[in-house]
Amino acid sequence: MPYYLKIKKLDIKTGQSDIALLNVDEAMRYGIKAGDKIKISWQKNSVIAEANTSHKRVKPGWIGLYRDIWENMEILPNTIAEVNFLERAQSVQAIKKRLLGKKLKYKDFYQIFSDIANGILTRTETTYFVAASFMHEYSNQELCDMVRAMAETGEMLKFEDKIVVDKHSVGGLAGNRTTMVAIPILASLGLTIPKTSSRAITSPAGTADTMEVLAPVAFNAKEIKAIVKKTNACLVWGGGVNLAPADDKILQVSYPLSLEPYDKMLVSIMAKKVATGVTHLVIDMPVGSTTKIPNMKIAKELEKKFQFIAKKFNIKVKVAIIQAEDPIGMGVGPSLEARDVLRVLQQKDNYPADLANKSIHLAGQLLELSGKAKKGQGAKIAWEVLESGQAWKKMQEIIEAQGGNPNIDPNDIILAAHKTYYNAPRSGKIIFTDNKAINTIARILGAPKDKLAGIYLNKEYGDHVKKGERLFTLYARGKERLRLADTALKKMAIFKIGK
Amino acid sequence: MPYYLKIKKLDIKTGQSDIALLNVDEAMRYGIKAGDKIKISWQKNSVIAEANTSHKRVKPGWIGLYRDIWENMEILPNTIAEVNFLERAQSVQAIKKRLLGKKLKYKDFYQIFSDIANGILTRTETTYFVAASFMHEYSNQELCDMVRAMAETGEMLKFEDKIVVDKHSVGGLAGNRTTMVAIPILASLGLTIPKTSSRAITSPAGTADTMEVLAPVAFNAKEIKAIVKKTNACLVWGGGVNLAPADDKILQVSYPLSLEPYDKMLVSIMAKKVATGVTHLVIDMPVGSTTKIPNMKIAKELEKKFQFIAKKFNIKVKVAIIQAEDPIGMGVGPSLEARDVLRVLQQKDNYPADLANKSIHLAGQLLELSGKAKKGQGAKIAWEVLESGQAWKKMQEIIEAQGGNPNIDPNDIILAAHKTYYNAPRSGKIIFTDNKAINTIARILGAPKDKLAGIYLNKEYGDHVKKGERLFTLYARGKERLRLADTALKKMAIFKIGK
Repeated sequence: MPYYLKIKKLDIKTGQSDIALLNVDEAMRYGIKAGDKIKISWQKNSVIAEANTSHKRVKPGWIGLYRDIWENMEILPNTIAEVNFLERAQSVQAIKKRLLGKKLKYKDFYQIFSDIANGILTRTETTYFVAASFMHEYSNQELCDMVRAMAETGEMLKFEDKIVVDKHSVGGLAGNRTTMVAIPILASLGLTIPKTSSRAITSPAGTADTMEVLAPVAFNAKEIKAIVKKTNACLVWGGGVNLAPADDKILQVSYPLSLEPYDKMLVSIMAKKVATGVTHLVIDMPVGSTTKIPNMKIAKELEKKFQFIAKKFNIKVKVAIIQAEDPIGMGVGPSLEARDVLRVLQQKDNYPADLANKSIHLAGQLLELSGKAKKGQGAKIAWEVLESGQAWKKMQEIIEAQGGNPNIDPNDIILAAHKTYYNAPRSGKIIFTDNKAINTIARILGAPKDKLAGIYLNKEYGDHVKKGERLFTLYARGKERLRLADTALKKMAIFKIGK
Repeated sequence: MPYYLKIKKLDIKTGQSDIALLNVDEAMRYGIKAGDKIKISWQKNSVIAEANTSHKRVKPGWIGLYRDIWENMEILPNTIAEVNFLERAQSVQAIKKRLLGKKLKYKDFYQIFSDIANGILTRTETTYFVAASFMHEYSNQELCDMVRAMAETGEMLKFEDKIVVDKHSVGGLAGNRTTMVAIPILASLGLTIPKTSSRAITSPAGTADTMEVLAPVAFNAKEIKAIVKKTNACLVWGGGVNLAPADDKILQVSYPLSLEPYDKMLVSIMAKKVATGVTHLVIDMPVGSTTKIPNMKIAKELEKKFQFIAKKFNIKVKVAIIQAEDPIGMGVGPSLEARDVLRVLQQKDNYPADLANKSIHLAGQLLELSGKAKKGQGAKIAWEVLESGQAWKKMQEIIEAQGGNPNIDPNDIILAAHKTYYNAPRSGKIIFTDNKAINTIARILGAPKDKLAGIYLNKEYGDHVKKGERLFTLYARGKERLRLADTALKKMAIFKIGK
């Protein structure tokens, strides 16, 4: 039996849960207690929230919604909501089963992902599901069922082209904005590549954050199709479309342990590819002590699983396992990374060579995989369209189609107003770059939320430096963050200088 | 580097997390984002909370604390708090280890329980720890290490007596207030029995909730010792002392899956016994399809583990495995159960015989275990002190020592003002009582929070009833809750009537 309450927008954000605040006496009358799940519906919208209670903040007859809910939805003044108590989710039974070591079927996964996506499972219940993934390895059949279920519980983008290519980085390396270089290369050669990217979660910049420096990135499925029709490609945020929506919430509870189960990563990547109808895929897998994949053994096992699943879904996949410890590019943080990308695409004198090389390598692999280039010719062709300016022309089309300024120059990129230089304390050769320290410091400076903040690496691995020579530069919006970063740098080092 | 902010009490309760609300701009300047853990200290107090952010609700210079925090602490007006960002807890590493199937040592458990107790581990991180308990069974050595660690991360009560006895019910059966009958019997015979009980979590009444109808139950360690010195016993709430404090928070994240790992239950019980210095223990373990322990096989395995651990800590234990489907006593809900207890102790004509019998059985076992009675004589002695009024006299002492009215009569117990009678739809014999339905309905009526609400069972298993004869009575504070319960009773039945 539903209750009807007037919606009040409350100015509180939890950053992780959808909370609705009820008057405590009213909640008690309705049999709802703090912590219960309720469903709130109005007009065509509905949301699952957790009930909190208050003595005075919310009057009887009203329901207060936190910013986490109303920030992304339209709620007109004086809206009346229907409120229903939510029974325990059925999928809880499936999670229990998995926790106790039993195998799950497609319909179990579908129910679980659907309940996670719709907020019917709580954070704690979702955590139990993720925990189960740590302990009993999934069979190949289960992995395929999960991929299909995760894709099908969200939106499915269909393109008319026979060949739809994609490149994906499993991440963990600072900088590494190869996507923004490789996509225009590939699209300029006539391949269809509708690229959806995530925002940063644990890193200082995701591809979506960086592209947003150059153009808007939030589009719905219809808009994305129009952009791709016009330019063969797009560089948009995945969150604007409802692709594999369970994935984001699973990621949120994986983060506290900072240990992403490999199976989970695999499913998350492949589900999104299935949902976008990808036919040819190159996976960039950086392997190194400070990246996500620590050694070749794990990389090889993952490669096998990627191959197995891809085959089931008729996707041709190539896993590019690349040893890497060093950031790609010189900038870390959305604006600094966007500047690197522009320097490469516009072939400026000071372009970061490693970013260009790696992008060409990956683009070349995809050209060969999709049959656009003969074996061994991919990188050469990619290099030619980059050098000739053809790739930059394509990028200008994409920027324009997404509503940005196609004539932007690297020097137009605005950086944060406050900066500090760090110089070499002694002469020597840089023998180690700490990728994790770079990520940590860049986040302390404000990246990725603050797009103008970040680190510019004036030197890189292998460089010989003289005492007092500039090593790197920190950018931040205020002096306080620079001070915080300076404190952190007393405990960790970005570069290690040898003799 | 700490920040200093003025405390503002906010009128919001989440029922599960300690939340501090920060101004969003200030939080950003300090490098704190929604979801981060912070430590807030003032005078001699400190609390770990989760940061939420707000644009307007909290002005710069202030920190808002939710009711979950300030309800149980003294905070004077204009208090300035020191706020520190909290690094990721070390115990997260131990939890990861366990998730990946490795064994943990005493110091790992100590760190985990200590961080859980102090709120340093988040709810999500605690969930990962509990999930790990589902999957890999603990070794006996691990169980002992957990018991010791859980006890030692809290307060340890020491009594001077050589013999300290206790009875414990693993729970799951409605009614079953044997503790409140057995304790005065045992104490009247000179045994020391400092009983700490929990409040109800999933049931409609815990021993602490029920005792609170007769006297206050929240006391600190010093006060408990004084009560025990005066009367040999106490009947207090465990939450007033800091016994095995990690246990409560672990319970909170176990609840959503409504599956308590048996190992967890075992550790939780034994840790509290170790912390209170118990030397002789009887465990009441009801076994039945609607209780916590579904069959004899599991009961026997648990008994073995209890014996193993108890031996390590020099505790003599007797596990009383009793087949049970039917509630013990006629009342369900704190006040109705308290009335049953008084009727038994005061030997009224209408006392529930099953409650008296089971209490005598358990008290008898403990008398024999502790050497106060010869083998086979325990129940007889227990029965004598109950019948003679000696046990009620002792209960009066305990009620008085805890600040209640020792001259209370069962008829003085106040029940909720609104009630509904339910009569037999046809004649026949009651062939089944649904313990779970009873718990659910009693909670819908408002128990345990509303002490006056609950169910009175006018009939019990095995009774022959005539059509139209009264089966049970529901009590609630308002008519709305009676209506809710009535709706629920269309989906479930308390009694099943056979031919």
